[in-house]
Amino acid sequence: ASNRNLLVLPGDGIGPEVMNEVRKIIAWMGKKRAVGFDIKEDVVGGAALDKHGVPLSDDTMKTALEADAVLFGSVGGPKWDTADFTKKPERGLLRLRKEMDLFANLRPAKVFDALVDASSLKPEIVKGLDIMIIRELTSGVYFGEPRGRHTNAQGEVEAFDTQRYTVPEIRRVCAVAFELARKRKNKVMSSEKANVMHTGVLWREVATELHKEKYSDVKLEHMYADALAMQLLRAPSQFDVIVTDNLFGDILSDEASMLTGSLGLLPSASLGAPDATGRRKALYEPIHGSAPDIAGKGLANPLAETLSYAMMLRYSFDLGKEADLVETAVENVLKAGYRTADLLAGGKTDGVKKVGTQEMGDAIVKEL
Amino acid sequence: ASNRNLLVLPGDGIGPEVMNEVRKIIAWMGKKRAVGFDIKEDVVGGAALDKHGVPLSDDTMKTALEADAVLFGSVGGPKWDTADFTKKPERGLLRLRKEMDLFANLRPAKVFDALVDASSLKPEIVKGLDIMIIRELTSGVYFGEPRGRHTNAQGEVEAFDTQRYTVPEIRRVCAVAFELARKRKNKVMSSEKANVMHTGVLWREVATELHKEKYSDVKLEHMYADALAMQLLRAPSQFDVIVTDNLFGDILSDEASMLTGSLGLLPSASLGAPDATGRRKALYEPIHGSAPDIAGKGLANPLAETLSYAMMLRYSFDLGKEADLVETAVENVLKAGYRTADLLAGGKTDGVKKVGTQEMGDAIVKEL
Ligand SMILES: CC(C)[C@H](C(=O)O)[C@@H](O)C(=O)O
Ligand SMILES: CC(C)[C@H](C(=O)O)[C@@H](O)C(=O)O
Repeated sequence: ASNRNLLVLPGDGIGPEVMNEVRKIIAWMGKKRAVGFDIKEDVVGGAALDKHGVPLSDDTMKTALEADAVLFGSVGGPKWDTADFTKKPERGLLRLRKEMDLFANLRPAKVFDALVDASSLKPEIVKGLDIMIIRELTSGVYFGEPRGRHTNAQGEVEAFDTQRYTVPEIRRVCAVAFELARKRKNKVMSSEKANVMHTGVLWREVATELHKEKYSDVKLEHMYADALAMQLLRAPSQFDVIVTDNLFGDILSDEASMLTGSLGLLPSASLGAPDATGRRKALYEPIHGSAPDIAGKGLANPLAETLSYAMMLRYSFDLGKEADLVETAVENVLKAGYRTADLLAGGKTDGVKKVGTQEMGDAIVKEL
Repeated sequence: ASNRNLLVLPGDGIGPEVMNEVRKIIAWMGKKRAVGFDIKEDVVGGAALDKHGVPLSDDTMKTALEADAVLFGSVGGPKWDTADFTKKPERGLLRLRKEMDLFANLRPAKVFDALVDASSLKPEIVKGLDIMIIRELTSGVYFGEPRGRHTNAQGEVEAFDTQRYTVPEIRRVCAVAFELARKRKNKVMSSEKANVMHTGVLWREVATELHKEKYSDVKLEHMYADALAMQLLRAPSQFDVIVTDNLFGDILSDEASMLTGSLGLLPSASLGAPDATGRRKALYEPIHGSAPDIAGKGLANPLAETLSYAMMLRYSFDLGKEADLVETAVENVLKAGYRTADLLAGGKTDGVKKVGTQEMGDAIVKEL
């Protein structure tokens, strides 16, 4: 046994395709670097709905809880769009996040030099951009109770959701942000709507206190979420680490990833609390969705899944060197001009080789 | 009497300065076009805290409710930053919105040809951009009860906010969106997080039903708020009218306005329901804030307040011709190269005349 238990959940749409390319890299790592995994594979999302009638079975949930890491593809597609709220493919992902207690979602927004022209933004604004957004992932309005629908006192149908945050929930995710900032540019921007929401007021207080208590060497600032949405466009390079709640994080990290012009390149890590041995439960997934429009056509970009795998090597197995190898291979392949379709829109076309999913995967393995 | 009762609330920071320039245009309209107003003026925000100990006095509230329109500047500043939740300058604005029942916030994001280079985005992406965001402004998490802070069953301090939407609340704001779309490119994009929030599910249902019932000639589509945050960057020109809730609207409209590269140019209108005579309560305000860093220095851009006044002429007093005059004057002054400091960052500098607040105001009057 490798002592590295990995659960692979390719999911729907382009998930299985991009995961196939990562398998090639996993095989390479086993052969050339003696980095092996005990791999289980299972279904999630629409695939699980088809097979088990639920977006994540209890069995799969159990396997995920026992694994050292989960490598996730993507879920959803038109086939399941009409499913009702509790049976949507996304609920499978939300259940994994919640029951594995993956409270810290790390979403890097990094601009690769070779792709600086692919962004909608002017190159001088995004060149060298390297932001890390930490999104709280297990609380807030995503899970707060009560939620639902009823007829109110005026006889009107009304829907409601509850945003809740406790002090420990805010503290632990802010701690992750401060720790990460220390390994980067030592700056944290905390974001909420403390001018409007009580959860925002508490968030700001807790971030400020924790900073004073334990992380006063890190620079901490606060910005309202609406102002942050603006500043991400005006001058994104002012940011290093951004920490925010589940809902603001959902929107702001998507905005930030679009700054890079290359959604097909962006990985993410979702981490739990360290256990007695220091190991955190973890799930790694690309930022992009299941892209049903291009699924099965060999057009999908496997690099976001590849970089998610690299994040896994780094954060779950302390294999920083191997992670570097993969990340450098991605950079070199981009420098060499390899582009899947998603990276071509708006970018330069001279010296560019248009490739499909498999060719891109092969190029990475060759580069390794 | 003019039969046009206007309440002017300059507020804090640059609010009074930019309002002074609009006064010149109001005077011009009275003299040259016989468009007069009965004007009352009062304090709001920090100025009201200083004078009355509250961010909006009951007297001012009463005057606002009696007025045909309120022309608002901006509120807030470091002096009042430490005020607690219910005594922040912003509460004055929130009270006006709520008690005047201004449920439809119209926020145009328009790129002026003369300023296409001022955006962080590539000119080919934003050229000709003309989006109208309709943000619900009197409900959702901004006002939902219960909200506050307590110690939960686990003995942890916890804060909570409630997002609520009723069917009539969603219907009336979507109706405004459909009506406006008919006068524009006939397309509405409705946005929520129906994959995660119950209010989002209801929002989508009500928008879909209303569309089928009364507005099937308009094209209606739906997009999750996170996806919209991305698409606003990737291909903003795909949108015509966007309708969304209070919190998503706050963030997305700020992102959209930043696409234009010229926050100092963007007005907004907040409208209530039409009364028996067809008149709607209304408040007009620039998108920009009180900008305490440049307040009192004669640097502020008065054009957003000027264009807010133009929106008022159009929406509250049916003076479309006069509104056109003002809007054309703004365009011409920009074409002629007049720029306040905020419009210079990143833009072209050839043929440009750098001006202060008063010179810009004078240039508009001269152009008129
Ligand atoms: C699929 C959806 C439930 C999810 C979310 O809203 O969290 C997605 O947008 C994300 O950011 O991972
Ligand atoms: C000042 C603040 C309360 C306000 C809001 O959040 O609505 C502002 O950001 C706006 O968009 O008008």
